[in-house]
Amino acid sequence: MPEIDAEGLKKRQDELIGLFNRAPMKRTFGMELHYDENGSAIFDMPYNPDFNHTLGGIHGGVIATLLDNAGWFTVAPLYNTWISTAELQVRLLNAAVKVDLYSRGRILSAGKRIAMAEMEVRTRDDLLVAVGSGSFAVTSMSITKAGA
Amino acid sequence: MPEIDAEGLKKRQDELIGLFNRAPMKRTFGMELHYDENGSAIFDMPYNPDFNHTLGGIHGGVIATLLDNAGWFTVAPLYNTWISTAELQVRLLNAAVKVDLYSRGRILSAGKRIAMAEMEVRTRDDLLVAVGSGSFAVTSMSITKAGA
Amino acid sequence: MPEIDAEGLKKRQDELIGLFNRAPMKRTFGMELHYDENGSAIFDMPYNPDFNHTLGGIHGGVIATLLDNAGWFTVAPLYNTWISTAELQVRLLNAAVKVDLYSRGRILSAGKRIAMAEMEVRTRDDLLVAVGSGSFAVTSMSITKAGA
Amino acid sequence: MPEIDAEGLKKRQDELIGLFNRAPMKRTFGMELHYDENGSAIFDMPYNPDFNHTLGGIHGGVIATLLDNAGWFTVAPLYNTWISTAELQVRLLNAAVKVDLYSRGRILSAGKRIAMAEMEVRTRDDLLVAVGSGSFAVTSMSITKAGA
Repeated sequence: MPEIDAEGLKKRQDELIGLFNRAPMKRTFGMELHYDENGSAIFDMPYNPDFNHTLGGIHGGVIATLLDNAGWFTVAPLYNTWISTAELQVRLLNAAVKVDLYSRGRILSAGKRIAMAEMEVRTRDDLLVAVGSGSFAVTSMSITKAGA
Repeated sequence: MPEIDAEGLKKRQDELIGLFNRAPMKRTFGMELHYDENGSAIFDMPYNPDFNHTLGGIHGGVIATLLDNAGWFTVAPLYNTWISTAELQVRLLNAAVKVDLYSRGRILSAGKRIAMAEMEVRTRDDLLVAVGSGSFAVTSMSITKAGA
Repeated sequence: MPEIDAEGLKKRQDELIGLFNRAPMKRTFGMELHYDENGSAIFDMPYNPDFNHTLGGIHGGVIATLLDNAGWFTVAPLYNTWISTAELQVRLLNAAVKVDLYSRGRILSAGKRIAMAEMEVRTRDDLLVAVGSGSFAVTSMSITKAGA
Repeated sequence: MPEIDAEGLKKRQDELIGLFNRAPMKRTFGMELHYDENGSAIFDMPYNPDFNHTLGGIHGGVIATLLDNAGWFTVAPLYNTWISTAELQVRLLNAAVKVDLYSRGRILSAGKRIAMAEMEVRTRDDLLVAVGSGSFAVTSMSITKAGA
């Protein structure tokens, strides 16, 4: 993990927001990314009934997508090279029915080969919908080459 | 877990296929469910670039959705009442780039309060894209009431 | 999950400390249990070289044991019946070399059939050694019958 | 991951058995390591009541120790450098009461920075007690330096 100053970190976060904005899945899920003052990636996802399961709640796989993104984009600014989600764990605590959601990540560890983060998904009223955690492998592929 | 004979199991599987076919997320993700002769739920998902991340692979959250579905629908026919995904773990082993995918579940345990399953996602050429496992809580809510 | 008042909770915690003190593994690992004012179970384990791996750090399985105990004993006082660890996830963040350790649990959810907790292991200097989380199935077996 | 021929693999397995035999925790838990013809590490642990919880079953943390070892020692022969367990997931399926146990690992992936394995614990009668999986970080530390 390279040392990054505050200005460098902000620049990388902006690059990664640009990267996310070019992702086809961003439009599909209707997610928006920003970073908070602690460096946590935050994804907002307005309610969209297209992601409901039959009972009318938002599908767990969509919650997993919010968690994965929050972890990945919280970890990614700390590295010069591409990272890759290796493993993700999701705990679904409360059903999310007809609600806007957001997810947030937090670094647990940031090593040379692997980083770990924990994440959560909440409703706009701050009901805790899910918690998760994941491992991210640090590859040698340059982010520029990756299109960032 | 009630005792179910082969005919009863087939009837439940058909009900659950009907349930899935009414899920808004089915259309969004373009998934199709069937059961194999071992009672494993199998989800087919043709390649759809709308679910790609910026680098052009299928997003890990979509892989998680395939795994969650495969586990849930493999466990659900064993119970008279509704089940709920409590926890899901995902291991991403190979990138899935411009490929049709399918997922499959397998029962690990089926208790009165909790069931566990393991799942996998493969390409049509049987490359192993991901493995996962999950815990499913057995609720007291009737499936009929739930709309199945 | 039954409603429990503060006095009832204290009584159960004392019963569970008694239960733990009769566990053969308590003596083997040299762990001590108490509860803090938030209801978190805390396990202290003084350094014992018998639990080292070849490189001289404390084995990850021992860290997992500390996490499992912290989660189980934080959840157990909330129920009248026996609970059973169904699933446990462990993230090892820092090596623990020749140090006293303690673990602590925190409730994530406490349903009728399943409860979830998150846990951590730290050195006495509060270095974060590991985090974990787990699912605990709520059985119908009485704790009295179980010997508590 | 370096290419290793069959003879080289056997040599490494023997080195790792020697490494394990010098681990203090080996004696404490009474575990024995060997490798099968598929390269899976197998750990035998005869029943020892010192590892029981109060109800008389073998503690889940000991099961986790068996799983961690099976994964670590299955992955380690594939690398020239030290590996480190980063994350471990455990699913407890059946109680293990007064029984000899063994664990076995299987490689899921073996990359340059991270390897994954899945593991199981069974009784000698082949009752499936637990399944698990884990992530192992590939460090740059030489195994010789590490004392292997």
